[in-house]
Amino acid sequence: MVTAPPPELLIEDAPLTIAGRQFRSRLMTGTGKYRSIADLQASVAASGCEIVTVAVRRVQTNAPGHEGLVDALDWSKIWLLPNTAGCQTAEEAIRVARLGREMAKLLGQEDNNFVKLEVIPDPKYLLPDPFGTLAAAEQLVKEGFAVLPYINADPLLAKRLEEVGCVTVMPLASPIGSGQGLRNAANIQIIIDQANVPVVVDAGIGTPSEAAAAMELGADALLINTAIAQAGNAPAMAKAMALATTAGRLAYLAGRIPVKAYASASSPTTGTITTAS
Amino acid sequence: MVTAPPPELLIEDAPLTIAGRQFRSRLMTGTGKYRSIADLQASVAASGCEIVTVAVRRVQTNAPGHEGLVDALDWSKIWLLPNTAGCQTAEEAIRVARLGREMAKLLGQEDNNFVKLEVIPDPKYLLPDPFGTLAAAEQLVKEGFAVLPYINADPLLAKRLEEVGCVTVMPLASPIGSGQGLRNAANIQIIIDQANVPVVVDAGIGTPSEAAAAMELGADALLINTAIAQAGNAPAMAKAMALATTAGRLAYLAGRIPVKAYASASSPTTGTITTAS
Amino acid sequence: MVTAPPPELLIEDAPLTIAGRQFRSRLMTGTGKYRSIADLQASVAASGCEIVTVAVRRVQTNAPGHEGLVDALDWSKIWLLPNTAGCQTAEEAIRVARLGREMAKLLGQEDNNFVKLEVIPDPKYLLPDPFGTLAAAEQLVKEGFAVLPYINADPLLAKRLEEVGCVTVMPLASPIGSGQGLRNAANIQIIIDQANVPVVVDAGIGTPSEAAAAMELGADALLINTAIAQAGNAPAMAKAMALATTAGRLAYLAGRIPVKAYASASSPTTGTITTAS
Amino acid sequence: MVTAPPPELLIEDAPLTIAGRQFRSRLMTGTGKYRSIADLQASVAASGCEIVTVAVRRVQTNAPGHEGLVDALDWSKIWLLPNTAGCQTAEEAIRVARLGREMAKLLGQEDNNFVKLEVIPDPKYLLPDPFGTLAAAEQLVKEGFAVLPYINADPLLAKRLEEVGCVTVMPLASPIGSGQGLRNAANIQIIIDQANVPVVVDAGIGTPSEAAAAMELGADALLINTAIAQAGNAPAMAKAMALATTAGRLAYLAGRIPVKAYASASSPTTGTITTAS
Repeated sequence: MVTAPPPELLIEDAPLTIAGRQFRSRLMTGTGKYRSIADLQASVAASGCEIVTVAVRRVQTNAPGHEGLVDALDWSKIWLLPNTAGCQTAEEAIRVARLGREMAKLLGQEDNNFVKLEVIPDPKYLLPDPFGTLAAAEQLVKEGFAVLPYINADPLLAKRLEEVGCVTVMPLASPIGSGQGLRNAANIQIIIDQANVPVVVDAGIGTPSEAAAAMELGADALLINTAIAQAGNAPAMAKAMALATTAGRLAYLAGRIPVKAYASASSPTTGTITTAS
Repeated sequence: MVTAPPPELLIEDAPLTIAGRQFRSRLMTGTGKYRSIADLQASVAASGCEIVTVAVRRVQTNAPGHEGLVDALDWSKIWLLPNTAGCQTAEEAIRVARLGREMAKLLGQEDNNFVKLEVIPDPKYLLPDPFGTLAAAEQLVKEGFAVLPYINADPLLAKRLEEVGCVTVMPLASPIGSGQGLRNAANIQIIIDQANVPVVVDAGIGTPSEAAAAMELGADALLINTAIAQAGNAPAMAKAMALATTAGRLAYLAGRIPVKAYASASSPTTGTITTAS
Repeated sequence: MVTAPPPELLIEDAPLTIAGRQFRSRLMTGTGKYRSIADLQASVAASGCEIVTVAVRRVQTNAPGHEGLVDALDWSKIWLLPNTAGCQTAEEAIRVARLGREMAKLLGQEDNNFVKLEVIPDPKYLLPDPFGTLAAAEQLVKEGFAVLPYINADPLLAKRLEEVGCVTVMPLASPIGSGQGLRNAANIQIIIDQANVPVVVDAGIGTPSEAAAAMELGADALLINTAIAQAGNAPAMAKAMALATTAGRLAYLAGRIPVKAYASASSPTTGTITTAS
Repeated sequence: MVTAPPPELLIEDAPLTIAGRQFRSRLMTGTGKYRSIADLQASVAASGCEIVTVAVRRVQTNAPGHEGLVDALDWSKIWLLPNTAGCQTAEEAIRVARLGREMAKLLGQEDNNFVKLEVIPDPKYLLPDPFGTLAAAEQLVKEGFAVLPYINADPLLAKRLEEVGCVTVMPLASPIGSGQGLRNAANIQIIIDQANVPVVVDAGIGTPSEAAAAMELGADALLINTAIAQAGNAPAMAKAMALATTAGRLAYLAGRIPVKAYASASSPTTGTITTAS
């Protein structure tokens, strides 16, 4: 007879804690590239995410087709993560981070000092500049920001950013929007092994299997935008990514089986056949 | 203001249908290698699976440590999939399949004619014999069995088995129990493209990311045993595998983004910064 | 002062021996898909190959653009490997194999009983039929052929073909002409581990790195056609493939370093710096 | 009848040019971790390399077992590449670089201003520090060095180092000595696409297939030490690496075939069988 799973077999997972703030969801999403506001709303809801990143410059400038983007989400339930997308230098990023803080206040999040720091001088590959990022991070930490820097998966850079007071590191899995998946797994693994702050894998994830794989490495959270917003059915993909993020986290906590060179029978082969009478 | 996801964005998925019988879960599990009966029970419950495979020879012989295995599950809710593990020839497999049908009746499943056909002469790699499998499948189909053959990922063999009346094909991802993951993806993709019966990827899956990846290819279902039973925490891994199976299925239905060689910004970089007054 | 490498450090490699015949080159090539006869000639020369496979049906039928193909090569130096490309059944393949033997005689190779056996009913993926291949192989062995069967990478099938007297097995790396590289490495490794005849990896190799990887697994030889014939510069690619085949073989014999999870310094870090006076 | 390859089919490759100096070999080796001086000598000879890197601190300190290392090679034929292995800061690396220049003079290379710059504060993963590396590079360029910096595969860092006057960039494939192969291929590809100086892939290559793969990406050269020095047979592996480096380069120049989703016959299947009379 089947009984309920004994309580001692359930896994307790600590909440994701960033700058003292706790979150249950380990999937963050964005607001870019959705086909419609309705798609955005449905996807955010389906993802179960508690943190949504917004490009401050987009909102400031009312970029075409994005009017009303900020009004589309319920900021009493979603934590705003302003980002500095579009900034090519540390100076620009610092200015936009300050604007982001204003935006948070206007949305009713008085104590929200988070900023996703992006310093991206390169228009083709959209890869972050380690030098500008470090310089901006140092200044923003001094100004009291909780800085979440977007970086190439360089373990030395990650360590340095942690040392200057960043509250997470956000290494990219592969170039943003490329959907190439985990192309820097060896370095991301080292970053995770060394980090004392949460590691959020950001950019490049294209599928739930890749999302799960990043979490199985021990990442603390993921940020996924394009793979959801541009999927054939965005809300369904949002749900798929949420499930995969949880699946990967659970598997990390549960402990996977070792990889073996050869087969190992699920069923013993020693039994002898007896004829059922 | 957030509204509920519009109904038109939800994805309808047909049930998994095998031999006319419908199942909602696309994850099947096994009963081998668990550390305890309690672990087995909790894992089956956590997996949400509706089909559990049982090695008929094990039950017949009361293999050490597995007494009571059959009594541990609620067969009014779980569909039995008897398997012929331990059979090296077509003849043995046919005999064990018949015993499996008896077992199903004893457990109250009068109309259960399913059999997972395994013909495995090789004790080291535990790979199935295509010739013995085909021969046994032909005979078992004649005897009215619903045959689910376990096979190497050979598209020609899969087609042939479908032609002789098998109700699914079950290609292996990598050697059983190895946890090597999807090592035959190119062939499994072809099998899926060609199949008119459900394709169940069986053996070798080690992690939720690999489970999701197999479903993203378009597999109809998965069978996972060792990766759950031998995980550090089996019920937690069972839950993780269930989530990943659903995630991969949803992603397949939703449609993933294309892989791009280069980056593509989530946020437009054309905005100009305006100072918040 | 540099001295010559001590003799004891050189590696002796046995010749490739198939059906008692010895070859120094471990790269075989084909004659299909070249842009010109000159390209074919230059490529065969650059590859250093000693075995060239020819589609018997093509020659029999003087397929458009291939007149003179047989006259283009010096059959006093190149060993002909007639193949049964285009045959969908065992019966067709057996007939074409016999025609191949006639062709070898006409080209002055009286004692050439080799045949590359291809039984391919599937026009889309061009994958070989295990059942037709085994049936044809059994008959051709009886007729005194040295049979080199082209197969999907199924270890059980490979073993069975060896048991009926085939002189090699030729598993495919990925679908023919696809250039997808080694997509069946796990199975090919098992085939190599079990084989008592040479294992020739055939079809799907696209680059020298993939050629080397197949040889590093322990394959005895490679057959590469499309990746050479359709390369931007076919003779240069032929040379590249020849070098990579030798490189992979040498590495297999030399013994690679183990893969380590972490770094290991090439240079000790214990030294202290002394100032040059 | 076979004729020699027409001259127009041969590929001309420019020499590798670093800081105005030309080299024919695209494989560089090191002197660390060999089992014996004889092994080192035979391996350098077998590799055909023209550039050998030496850890200046090792030579300065006569590290155990390495006495006579410098005398073991013929510096009238091999170009010395002094490296700063063991330096944790920019200051240390600058001092050791100057010592390296002295060493080159003592070995008769008066005009050798090359230095392989390594700034590695991390003793576990031995990954280079981007900030210390950039600082040291700027200073050493001012002092007239030809600087070849060893870096994590960060395209922005690579670009910055090129801008300050480095003569190559040397991204790592995976952690040094790990033999993990190309784990940063996506980033290395971007570095190659953007670079105006030679890109030398350094560290992590374990096999000839991985060496060839790096060259097929378009890398200009490789530096391989551990995978040769610690191979079962070091000189044989040195030869294998040399062949693979050339093979990968040739393939890059020749142009590989595209990867196709499905098969494409080498031999046409349209012929009809005619019976040989």
